[in-house]
Amino acid sequence: MEKIEHIGIAVKNIKDANKIYEVLLGAAPYKSEKVESEGVETSFFQCGESKIELLEALNPDSPIAKFIEKRGEGIHHIAFAVKDIEAEMARLKKEGFVLLNEKPKRGADNKWVAFIHPKSANGVLVELCQEIENN
Amino acid sequence: MEKIEHIGIAVKNIKDANKIYEVLLGAAPYKSEKVESEGVETSFFQCGESKIELLEALNPDSPIAKFIEKRGEGIHHIAFAVKDIEAEMARLKKEGFVLLNEKPKRGADNKWVAFIHPKSANGVLVELCQEIENN
Repeated sequence: MEKIEHIGIAVKNIKDANKIYEVLLGAAPYKSEKVESEGVETSFFQCGESKIELLEALNPDSPIAKFIEKRGEGIHHIAFAVKDIEAEMARLKKEGFVLLNEKPKRGADNKWVAFIHPKSANGVLVELCQEIENN
Repeated sequence: MEKIEHIGIAVKNIKDANKIYEVLLGAAPYKSEKVESEGVETSFFQCGESKIELLEALNPDSPIAKFIEKRGEGIHHIAFAVKDIEAEMARLKKEGFVLLNEKPKRGADNKWVAFIHPKSANGVLVELCQEIENN
């Protein structure tokens, strides 16, 4: 893993949460983005080389809605930046980690992403991220 | 906030978790440390400019034991590096954030630390960290 790409935080109301995190982090979000495939609205704050991603569910079937219903607001996942997501997925699968995706899928913030099941990482939902090259 | 200093993950068995995170992150922990005042054993993995901190409870009264009993293993807190922890505590208190410490206390990995109540940050336990200068 190259670095912590971002930490994803599930919130009920992203407008209210944006105000709180803007004060906490001392900077406004640099991007807001809807990811329809995941049923989420997101906003991103830069913090050093990493980002804080806030996530609000767009509908009750969104994984974020289910997470909040079960556990309340809070940290949802850690995303690590990788250079070659397919190679990293193959390496971790071989090591016995349970992947939630067979192939990388298009995520927020111009990334290929794939998830590792929390049962493989002591209760932590781990995301792998690779920047999409725009040719 | 300067950067994400570390992410704290509550685990049941730190020896087993060290093996998992060594494979996941591709590097062994660079430090293991008991923090008797917090009732925890910790290990640290470098990842870019940030760290992953694993925490195992040393006794049933440890906050980590209570966290795991209530929610299971998983992400326990996010720590941000700050230059002047007392100034940052005063700033956030004035902004209405609820602090869990009146003054900075000595934490793991040679840091002054203070915590912000999760109710002030959408369910996220936030730690502020300042490196202790050794004169």
